[in-house]
Amino acid sequence: MPLKETFLSLKKAQALLALQNRSQKDAALLAAAAAIDGARAAVLSANAADVERARRGGMKDALVDRLFLDGRRVDAMIEGIKTVADLEDPVGRVKAGWKTPDGLFIEECTVPLGVAAIIYESRPNVTADAASLAYKAGCAILLRGSSAALDSNRAITAAIKQGLKAGGGIAEAVELADSGDHGDVDEILSARGLVDVALPRGGHDLIRRVVENARVPVIETGEGNCHIFVDASADIPEALDIVENAKVQKPGACNAVETVLVHREILSAFMPALAARLAGRVELRCDAASKAAVSGSGEYPAGLRVKDAVEEDWTEEFLDYILAVKTVDSVDQAIEHINRCGTRHSEAILGNDMKNAETFCQKVDAACVYVNASTRFTDGGMFGFGAELGISTQKFHARGPMGLDALTTIKYRISGRGHIRGGQ
Amino acid sequence: MPLKETFLSLKKAQALLALQNRSQKDAALLAAAAAIDGARAAVLSANAADVERARRGGMKDALVDRLFLDGRRVDAMIEGIKTVADLEDPVGRVKAGWKTPDGLFIEECTVPLGVAAIIYESRPNVTADAASLAYKAGCAILLRGSSAALDSNRAITAAIKQGLKAGGGIAEAVELADSGDHGDVDEILSARGLVDVALPRGGHDLIRRVVENARVPVIETGEGNCHIFVDASADIPEALDIVENAKVQKPGACNAVETVLVHREILSAFMPALAARLAGRVELRCDAASKAAVSGSGEYPAGLRVKDAVEEDWTEEFLDYILAVKTVDSVDQAIEHINRCGTRHSEAILGNDMKNAETFCQKVDAACVYVNASTRFTDGGMFGFGAELGISTQKFHARGPMGLDALTTIKYRISGRGHIRGGQ
Repeated sequence: MPLKETFLSLKKAQALLALQNRSQKDAALLAAAAAIDGARAAVLSANAADVERARRGGMKDALVDRLFLDGRRVDAMIEGIKTVADLEDPVGRVKAGWKTPDGLFIEECTVPLGVAAIIYESRPNVTADAASLAYKAGCAILLRGSSAALDSNRAITAAIKQGLKAGGGIAEAVELADSGDHGDVDEILSARGLVDVALPRGGHDLIRRVVENARVPVIETGEGNCHIFVDASADIPEALDIVENAKVQKPGACNAVETVLVHREILSAFMPALAARLAGRVELRCDAASKAAVSGSGEYPAGLRVKDAVEEDWTEEFLDYILAVKTVDSVDQAIEHINRCGTRHSEAILGNDMKNAETFCQKVDAACVYVNASTRFTDGGMFGFGAELGISTQKFHARGPMGLDALTTIKYRISGRGHIRGGQ
Repeated sequence: MPLKETFLSLKKAQALLALQNRSQKDAALLAAAAAIDGARAAVLSANAADVERARRGGMKDALVDRLFLDGRRVDAMIEGIKTVADLEDPVGRVKAGWKTPDGLFIEECTVPLGVAAIIYESRPNVTADAASLAYKAGCAILLRGSSAALDSNRAITAAIKQGLKAGGGIAEAVELADSGDHGDVDEILSARGLVDVALPRGGHDLIRRVVENARVPVIETGEGNCHIFVDASADIPEALDIVENAKVQKPGACNAVETVLVHREILSAFMPALAARLAGRVELRCDAASKAAVSGSGEYPAGLRVKDAVEEDWTEEFLDYILAVKTVDSVDQAIEHINRCGTRHSEAILGNDMKNAETFCQKVDAACVYVNASTRFTDGGMFGFGAELGISTQKFHARGPMGLDALTTIKYRISGRGHIRGGQ
């Protein structure tokens, strides 16, 4: 049906879903998980068709791998839904309650945000993740995946809807935008009053496009040009472990480090050790001083790749085995660089100087500021939120790793005994 | 200076303001209040010029009154700033803190939202209110008032900035957009990355214009097509007091009632009493059944004005001595009407049937739902928030009466001891 009608039907379904209690929602989610288990064959053959089409279309292997599903990945999808069922219900909580001087009793309660729309790229598992998270939060959701994954998403969504129905839930609260038409996205982004939040999930270009064009509320996620500042007071072996972890463990993650800022006083001791640690694995893009500190150390580690950093290196999210290195003279210079070049995601200071750590944490404008830890911990799972909706890099409504709360809002319930307002 | 430069200067000032502690901010605010007191003559003569110009331009008296300042209103402005200084500091609060299984210590702290911009109409007191609220929350603010109040706003802003400076504060955190050029507003609304929130304050058209055109986060405020549902179980004298209060005490307020929904079972008893209570003061726009119930009662109160309601009456915010009346057969019919015609502001049920009250509170989609109380209580002051930023009718970021918290966001502070992430 046309998207406008889909929105209206989602709104209706959401009103019903909002009245379901936790055990009803969890039962429906577990039935959906079982339904995907039961539909393995259909899901895998649909996915095979997508993969085949993508290969014929000349899609890069890395992207094909994102699209690809096998038994293990289907298992993970099913486990993900079960995890969401295990999460606390984010709605129906009384966040605050008080009596006013007039004797009115006011309660601030959490309620579902409403109708969500997620616009994402080729990973089919996002279909199950997003549907289950929204359902648990009492939100109806429109799933707008990439056309490359259309067959997979159709099979997964069909299984979820059938499962929700079988589990006594509201199947109409989950819909797939499957026209494959690109106009869909613009229609979603301009659906004021019908879509309460749009969630872009994917690469830089997708997120930009959504953020620039949205007429509905958006939660911007994922862009991470993250920094680690190695203070003069840093413990070098510890700093090497943290920088290696933040860069190498998963370079494609948004919380991976892209630029290391090194205090000039520690440069000559730290850089040769860093070069030795990353040689053959990571390309360094150094400013003049840090480059000199590497070569100045006499022996040059085998397989080390060092380039001269250019201006763009300070703002690019490499998502690759590349690390920019810049020399700074003080914590304030590091902070100035981070606030100018960063994406407000995750920023770390390594060192043992308490004043510098406090200055860094207070002055750096980012969702997450770290002292003596890897930026890789910025993650809903690591934070203990269970499943994660994404990592918000905006300040409005939600910031940092988002659990289910990001899909809720509040409602004030006010109880009186015939109260009327006096005065003016 | 051009607005772009103003934004950059506000951003710089905000970074400094964010580091001020509560006593520094309060001292600056109290000095600003004193400065307005000292600048009374200048403020009043500037306002006299605005009023004179407005009268010559043929502005309606009601609007001229909004623009007009006298000693009493200047006193109120000064008191307002002192009230804000008395409020708790909304930033620097640790909302939550926990240790992760890895032993990382995570704290969720409140921080200022950043740079705010308020776009408002002729009331000059909004200049002082908004400036002081933003300052207290650690936000820099751009004030974009109506050109009709330009001289008044210039005088007030000059006094505030001089006072902030004298009080050791950051005068550059408050700026007035005083070009009088309408392009200003579009420039504000498209200043992504420079403006963290835009606050429209004024009539329907202003708010619509801002919401429809904003490229920056917006908090939509003020539109209130509020309803009161008089259930069959209502106590009639109490219901009459509440409806009268909600309609008559301040008809121009957004929390005033515009439509009363009456349960058919109580119609014949309630309507004649309501007509008698409001005769000569409020025009009724009734559906057929409620109109018949009025006239059917035999004697027709002197001065009563009753019209047949037309479709538009169900969606219009009269802001006047006009009340629409509709007959419904059940609480669900009342809820359906409210969710279709309301503006998600404030909705009330009057009665003694607990199930109906619970159904109403759960199913009505609004910022504030009332049981046996007047909708006029939806107000930051009445809620106990001290000063108020406005009443949000959106679900995103802030909902209902907004205190200073609406101008804050959060930052996660994570402390480790050399923590690196294991696994995948």
